[in-house]
Amino acid sequence: MRADGRRPDELRPTTISPGFIGQALGSALVTAGRTRVICTANLEPQTPGWLKRGGWVTAEYSMLPGATRPRGRRDPGGRGKEIQRLVGRSLRAAVDLGRLVGRDGPLSIICDCDVIEADGGTRTASITGGYVALVIALRRLVAQGILEAAPIIAPVAAVSVGMVALGGGKETSALLDLPYAEDSVAAVDLNVVMRGEGMVEIQGTGEDGVFSRPELARMLDLAEHGCRQLFAIQAAALEVADA
Amino acid sequence: MRADGRRPDELRPTTISPGFIGQALGSALVTAGRTRVICTANLEPQTPGWLKRGGWVTAEYSMLPGATRPRGRRDPGGRGKEIQRLVGRSLRAAVDLGRLVGRDGPLSIICDCDVIEADGGTRTASITGGYVALVIALRRLVAQGILEAAPIIAPVAAVSVGMVALGGGKETSALLDLPYAEDSVAAVDLNVVMRGEGMVEIQGTGEDGVFSRPELARMLDLAEHGCRQLFAIQAAALEVADA
Amino acid sequence: MRADGRRPDELRPTTISPGFIGQALGSALVTAGRTRVICTANLEPQTPGWLKRGGWVTAEYSMLPGATRPRGRRDPGGRGKEIQRLVGRSLRAAVDLGRLVGRDGPLSIICDCDVIEADGGTRTASITGGYVALVIALRRLVAQGILEAAPIIAPVAAVSVGMVALGGGKETSALLDLPYAEDSVAAVDLNVVMRGEGMVEIQGTGEDGVFSRPELARMLDLAEHGCRQLFAIQAAALEVADA
Amino acid sequence: MRADGRRPDELRPTTISPGFIGQALGSALVTAGRTRVICTANLEPQTPGWLKRGGWVTAEYSMLPGATRPRGRRDPGGRGKEIQRLVGRSLRAAVDLGRLVGRDGPLSIICDCDVIEADGGTRTASITGGYVALVIALRRLVAQGILEAAPIIAPVAAVSVGMVALGGGKETSALLDLPYAEDSVAAVDLNVVMRGEGMVEIQGTGEDGVFSRPELARMLDLAEHGCRQLFAIQAAALEVADA
Amino acid sequence: MRADGRRPDELRPTTISPGFIGQALGSALVTAGRTRVICTANLEPQTPGWLKRGGWVTAEYSMLPGATRPRGRRDPGGRGKEIQRLVGRSLRAAVDLGRLVGRDGPLSIICDCDVIEADGGTRTASITGGYVALVIALRRLVAQGILEAAPIIAPVAAVSVGMVALGGGKETSALLDLPYAEDSVAAVDLNVVMRGEGMVEIQGTGEDGVFSRPELARMLDLAEHGCRQLFAIQAAALEVADA
Amino acid sequence: MRADGRRPDELRPTTISPGFIGQALGSALVTAGRTRVICTANLEPQTPGWLKRGGWVTAEYSMLPGATRPRGRRDPGGRGKEIQRLVGRSLRAAVDLGRLVGRDGPLSIICDCDVIEADGGTRTASITGGYVALVIALRRLVAQGILEAAPIIAPVAAVSVGMVALGGGKETSALLDLPYAEDSVAAVDLNVVMRGEGMVEIQGTGEDGVFSRPELARMLDLAEHGCRQLFAIQAAALEVADA
Repeated sequence: MRADGRRPDELRPTTISPGFIGQALGSALVTAGRTRVICTANLEPQTPGWLKRGGWVTAEYSMLPGATRPRGRRDPGGRGKEIQRLVGRSLRAAVDLGRLVGRDGPLSIICDCDVIEADGGTRTASITGGYVALVIALRRLVAQGILEAAPIIAPVAAVSVGMVALGGGKETSALLDLPYAEDSVAAVDLNVVMRGEGMVEIQGTGEDGVFSRPELARMLDLAEHGCRQLFAIQAAALEVADA
Repeated sequence: MRADGRRPDELRPTTISPGFIGQALGSALVTAGRTRVICTANLEPQTPGWLKRGGWVTAEYSMLPGATRPRGRRDPGGRGKEIQRLVGRSLRAAVDLGRLVGRDGPLSIICDCDVIEADGGTRTASITGGYVALVIALRRLVAQGILEAAPIIAPVAAVSVGMVALGGGKETSALLDLPYAEDSVAAVDLNVVMRGEGMVEIQGTGEDGVFSRPELARMLDLAEHGCRQLFAIQAAALEVADA
Repeated sequence: MRADGRRPDELRPTTISPGFIGQALGSALVTAGRTRVICTANLEPQTPGWLKRGGWVTAEYSMLPGATRPRGRRDPGGRGKEIQRLVGRSLRAAVDLGRLVGRDGPLSIICDCDVIEADGGTRTASITGGYVALVIALRRLVAQGILEAAPIIAPVAAVSVGMVALGGGKETSALLDLPYAEDSVAAVDLNVVMRGEGMVEIQGTGEDGVFSRPELARMLDLAEHGCRQLFAIQAAALEVADA
Repeated sequence: MRADGRRPDELRPTTISPGFIGQALGSALVTAGRTRVICTANLEPQTPGWLKRGGWVTAEYSMLPGATRPRGRRDPGGRGKEIQRLVGRSLRAAVDLGRLVGRDGPLSIICDCDVIEADGGTRTASITGGYVALVIALRRLVAQGILEAAPIIAPVAAVSVGMVALGGGKETSALLDLPYAEDSVAAVDLNVVMRGEGMVEIQGTGEDGVFSRPELARMLDLAEHGCRQLFAIQAAALEVADA
Repeated sequence: MRADGRRPDELRPTTISPGFIGQALGSALVTAGRTRVICTANLEPQTPGWLKRGGWVTAEYSMLPGATRPRGRRDPGGRGKEIQRLVGRSLRAAVDLGRLVGRDGPLSIICDCDVIEADGGTRTASITGGYVALVIALRRLVAQGILEAAPIIAPVAAVSVGMVALGGGKETSALLDLPYAEDSVAAVDLNVVMRGEGMVEIQGTGEDGVFSRPELARMLDLAEHGCRQLFAIQAAALEVADA
Repeated sequence: MRADGRRPDELRPTTISPGFIGQALGSALVTAGRTRVICTANLEPQTPGWLKRGGWVTAEYSMLPGATRPRGRRDPGGRGKEIQRLVGRSLRAAVDLGRLVGRDGPLSIICDCDVIEADGGTRTASITGGYVALVIALRRLVAQGILEAAPIIAPVAAVSVGMVALGGGKETSALLDLPYAEDSVAAVDLNVVMRGEGMVEIQGTGEDGVFSRPELARMLDLAEHGCRQLFAIQAAALEVADA
């Protein structure tokens, strides 16, 4: 049994509130346990200069200083940059960029993921919530007549899994959706981004030692199980947003 | 009548939710109309090197990119620095710094004010909400035995007032608590920070032309009226926080 | 009696030397007691991108490291940025920006205010001297046939006032034009920028405690008195410049 | 058949020249095809402040501007920071940090990986060559009597694998050790860091679409095969270094 | 004959006003033709960490934006950094650093050279004037009982010389003390720093083509001639300062 | 006799390997004793905005952190900026910029000089090797039909000379091509850049005291002797490159 009473294959209570920021083109507040992230998606005035054809989706990730104890620094530094590159790649995997072209030319969408409270899994929550903000933004562009259709390939969601020694023992178990308390003692930490049944990105790190192929398989099983539930939560949030 | 139906001397609907961020020592979400600011107060590991005696209170102010339409840039630049200096000075006016000394020496508290949605009045909301986060933090330090008593002199709150031509005319009226739509067309813009009956700070700018002594008097009357109500909202929020 | 022998309503000896820097389009050295600021006004190659119509006036403020004791740092940081925003707003109030348009399009003027010796009141001296440099620059543009007429609305000048306890007592008096020695012990510090009889900007801070409406009134009376004298000094300097 | 004539499971010609930089404590030039990286390992004067016990190993990764066509910019930006975090984590996995303690206290080693020519696989070459530079540095510290023994757990090496459509077709094959020409068209790109039989880190990205569990398995098989050969090349280079 | 009527071996009118900035420990305004530089010398709170014994002298060089036409940028960039390294080295050559040790330990002096108007020769004027500011600062430290004696080895002064084609011809002449108009068309530009009869530093650049040994000899002759006069001007200024 | 057995007028073993970096337009590895610099020359997409006519050549200079003992910092700071300005000026002296104009307009070439191991003389080696990389780049542009002919005026090379007290005595001798061990104890340090028989740039510094005209003459004699040999080494390298 885990410290918060969950089964190994159980997500934290997860909610997605669409339209949390009224002024953004698309937005969502995603909550996973105590982790909370505000995601807003907006048009950028122009696509990157190097882009030859189609549109673009990018992301910025940041954490409020008060989101952690002790208080963090405002400048995200290397870690923040690395995460926002991951979020950007993951959101782009959801979109048919070749069709992200509006009446007046290619479109560029930026998704800001700002962590207001952090308790592990902020990058995966950013992807899961960022997808909802992105879809709302695309749908509004369709409603405004700027896009003909929202060029979504399939939903993208992400979750963390890990090998953790429960109860202070030596033997590790595969656990789904690690809060900070588990993440900080995990022997292996794996973030998995999925689109439907396929993997968009996996990032696994043996924090203390190495991991084997069977351990990887057990973690991927959990991640697939978790992402299926996140797809359902995303769909429900988007239904609310449409209403 | 104003665009949002308020009387000239009426505040926007204003709420303060204490304890909004669980991991912070003190926190509050302040809402004034559509403007929303997360305020968190935390201990800094050390006081500034130039400080000879007593403790210190400082502030950081920032705005999420998605808080405005169009999307803002992440780096606050000169405007953000100027506002956080104002917030810091205002919060220090509420505190007897000479008594901000704990068991193990002088204490330094940093109050982060992060605007998650902006519709005018973000600096004054930061001060009003920052005060609540600060008091909660001080009370928790007392509860932890680090401070003997919370060294609060008196509550500090802030509000904007301005001279605005209603209905597109030439004649301006003094209005309390300007949203962005009024602020952007105001002939004069005045931010007033009060502690009890006294003024802590006033910053008035003739955005388009100059202002007279009688106009200043009318605006200060409104500001005093508004701050009295904000003191009551702060007190109610702190009562909830204590419960 | 004040430490330097002045009456409460007396300015420090103030001079403005027009044309101090031969290579600048417009320039002035302003001296207020020991405070000295070099102001130069020059054309910028282009107006800000966001400007829809008319010209623009901006300012940069900096202090030489050797201007203070102890020596200051070269990077102005937040305080310098805040001051240059104030100087820019104040100088723009003197100009009809809609008519700051030359033969070849809108003009942008930048006014550099560089403090070479600092003894309090550097921001107000920058505004008072910057106005003279600006007018000289505009007149030269007229002489060069670039502008039809100098689009000046009215002179702008600035002065500091404060509530200071003289002689180490408790009771404070309103004083005009504070040098560093008075500024650093002032209970209240107020910078006032005027255009003719109207206020362009007021910035008042209770450095140690709060201030009342009657105290504000006394300080504004002094500021109006001081600015009237500064307008005369500006006019005399501009007459010299024309000769 | 691949463009360079290799079999799918074949490494590029890979060499490691130990001691390439005479002034460094430990160094190696690693060459994988046209990719070349200079790795130098040196003592840092102190361990990070947050480190409670044991020593530390960190890395910096950079690319000479002339290493790519077209010429790159000198500032590595987000991508460089992300890679150096990966290299640092990977090298730390090779070391028993608790025993990285010298006569005079904990030791901190920094490994600089500077790419002098880039043709894909620069991050994995940095890890593979950085390990050799690190071991040489540790052995020299032992020779100097600063360390009692080199606290190496096991060799660490890294290689890239990917799913690439050969010959312009639709069907992808799993390929080992991608040069730029293959990497830039890969459907999936996976970097694998191994220590002995276990995985230290895996980073897989579906560059164009998603990947399945069987595809992941095929890529990991190749990576294990490649790392076994790299361990042999590392061992041979270290033998030369000892001679 | 030169454009300003000088003979080839004639300095521009050069003055040094000691004590120009009252708040600085030592100061001087140096004027060479239209070039004007404020030099201030002050104590730094500590010597550089890498300094094993004795004191240190360093310099900062900057140019006010309004000093040139067109207006310059505030950030000095590479050119400014290069000049301040030259000024620092030159001033250190005047001082016996081993004896720059006060009652309470080694002393560090920083000399700020801020160009307020630029017409060529700003770096050499900075050295010539900086020396005077430095000596005044050292003498004041002696007067304050902090130093036993001013550890001056010998005066240091600097001047520019160059090979310039007068009157638009092809043939170049060696000229002393180039203003901007000559400097910008010089075929060769040489800055010479002297201490007594010896050279402290020479920096010669063939701006357009190369220069020969005989040309170098002619330029050095002029530089020696100019520096002898500058030593006299420095001595006179220091005599005034003492009075 | 010098510590490394060389005569006073003897260069260190110096080699230039053309084409060291396959992806660069032009490249060379230059080795002078233990000092090694990679030089790559590439086209920049555009010439500087201020350039009125003709092409441009610029340089960047940097040092790998592992190039020195102890390890250096990655940011070159003022010293690096100063050196790259020298390298740029020197390489421009070799080129008839007015003819550096290709089929489609003026060309800009950037020469990166990256020191991979440093033992004194890195700036002069950068110039000597940078010239070879530059010529190879120009020749390739000719081969590609972009340039009609390589606009080289004459070869440029550089070497350091100095006055050094051998064997710990007081008396100094003029020495050619100083390694770090000699450079760090030199009384005078002089870098000389030559084009044919003429001097392009000289930079001499009395590191400890001053230097006389006869000493300067002895050092320049050595420098001319050294550059003649370097011209031969450059020519041989370019012949190899052509083959």
